[in-house]
Amino acid sequence: MKRVLAISGGIGGAKLALGLQHVLPAQALTVVVNTGDDFEHLGLAISPDVDTTLYTLGGLANTELGWGRAAESWNFMAEMERWGGETWFRLGDKDLALHIERTRRLGAGESPASITEHFAQRLGLATRVLPMTNDRVRTRIGTNEGVLDFQHYFVRRRCEPVVSGISYDGAAEARPVECVAELQGRDLQAVVICPSNPWLSIDPILAIPGWRTALQRTQAPVVAVSPLIAGQAVKGPTAKIMRELGLDVTAMIIAGHYADVIDGFVLDQADAHLAAQIDVPVHVTRTLMLTFEDKERLAREVLDFARSLRPVAVGSGA
Amino acid sequence: MKRVLAISGGIGGAKLALGLQHVLPAQALTVVVNTGDDFEHLGLAISPDVDTTLYTLGGLANTELGWGRAAESWNFMAEMERWGGETWFRLGDKDLALHIERTRRLGAGESPASITEHFAQRLGLATRVLPMTNDRVRTRIGTNEGVLDFQHYFVRRRCEPVVSGISYDGAAEARPVECVAELQGRDLQAVVICPSNPWLSIDPILAIPGWRTALQRTQAPVVAVSPLIAGQAVKGPTAKIMRELGLDVTAMIIAGHYADVIDGFVLDQADAHLAAQIDVPVHVTRTLMLTFEDKERLAREVLDFARSLRPVAVGSGA
Repeated sequence: MKRVLAISGGIGGAKLALGLQHVLPAQALTVVVNTGDDFEHLGLAISPDVDTTLYTLGGLANTELGWGRAAESWNFMAEMERWGGETWFRLGDKDLALHIERTRRLGAGESPASITEHFAQRLGLATRVLPMTNDRVRTRIGTNEGVLDFQHYFVRRRCEPVVSGISYDGAAEARPVECVAELQGRDLQAVVICPSNPWLSIDPILAIPGWRTALQRTQAPVVAVSPLIAGQAVKGPTAKIMRELGLDVTAMIIAGHYADVIDGFVLDQADAHLAAQIDVPVHVTRTLMLTFEDKERLAREVLDFARSLRPVAVGSGA
Repeated sequence: MKRVLAISGGIGGAKLALGLQHVLPAQALTVVVNTGDDFEHLGLAISPDVDTTLYTLGGLANTELGWGRAAESWNFMAEMERWGGETWFRLGDKDLALHIERTRRLGAGESPASITEHFAQRLGLATRVLPMTNDRVRTRIGTNEGVLDFQHYFVRRRCEPVVSGISYDGAAEARPVECVAELQGRDLQAVVICPSNPWLSIDPILAIPGWRTALQRTQAPVVAVSPLIAGQAVKGPTAKIMRELGLDVTAMIIAGHYADVIDGFVLDQADAHLAAQIDVPVHVTRTLMLTFEDKERLAREVLDFARSLRPVAVGSGA
């Protein structure tokens, strides 16, 4: 069976991962998820992108909020206010179970990868979900208010501070999770870099030398899907951060950012005019994923596009 | 202002503490609570008797269940089942906030006493609530199934194993919480041993040498309220444990058990015939506390009874 490896952050990436899960045979998909925005809060080990991925693939995600659980209740949070605890990071009653069980298992010595696989198994997923590494990597945001831990920037300060730089503490020493070996296998059909924020969600993975090298060396085509549509992100601060980092807010810049790892780039139809300025083969389509059908269709197109790149020498044009 | 110190376990004791809180002036009552049944579960520091006391005095207690929060929801617990976590100890969504905030504060180096006082303050209580000690004491139950940690005996095994002995690990080395000094003060009006299980709830406190000595030395009258009515406990395994320990299941045995610390004993009217066999002064009344008025009336009677003992030499009859 031909396998597919997807590299993803939270919500945007998870949407495409869900599409891939549905168009691929069971067991064919592995999703490697950013853990640079993991953090410890209220004594709990929280892994937001892994959780969003599990919830999305398992059909439990709150699609209105874009994070957390569907049909969530907030009694715990209201009581935290009563006791004077921290409430800036909203933890729903259902969501909490995952954090508590993860924290307990980590304390018992289990690895993040093993814990995530346990959760995926409990959901009955036909997809492997893995954190990018079992080691500790922490994304920190340099801002006009000083260096902020990721969730303090992202949630507590609502992405309001002006970003001057981003670091991935621990990434240089981190080892990729074992599924990185799939990139060397002959049965890998494609690698998909999902439409997540490149700086906040994908770069923590690429900052791990073992991942970047493996992506550069794989014989499978590596295709990235643009997270920008006409210079805007569907959700999140991608455009704001690009501006603050002094970058043009265009999909072309994103394609260039991934230049050393991708073999193809999927561009939104609104950005079709940029295709000629991108150095790798481009597939133009509607990338907005509102419905389940959108996700399936985009997944199918991405895989077809990757397949079209296959016979060509790695890294060259179509 | 004349102060009162109450010594209590969970539900039964907390009912009388609530009565005392209402009949005494604000700030006059201190409740010292058993922490021998504290335990660590799912990575959380849980202090059941302290929580029951806080919830009861703060008007948040689930009076139907006899533990936990009123109007509780159970979404967290249902999700723990989904993830394959432990669910034998039921933690409600609201209740959880107290455990998480306590655990976080303990991790930050705060003492159990300080944390409990913080919670009492957040509830706006006019009563001081304190754990018996800041040190670790663990009640362990010797049974026909081996030695069980308290909550494993009490909750997981529903008090079904046959009890052969009880130990209070750490009690001999534990220091009483600082309010033990109130027992030496001249403004103490009474010490009330609440109608809690003597072996499971009160003995962990008396097993701390500093508490026992202070109770023996105090000039204030020490009055215990029987937890038995006609050989039966209102709630919990007191009678079962007494039988298994080879004791007669009568209030007389309870009075004898407290002989070296009490100056008076409050007996239920159903046990009036036992009064003559008890070596300290006895007050006979209705001890069942079903309504709020029951709690207030019993509290008032207990304080009046203690006052009646006051002019007499410590330890002698009325």
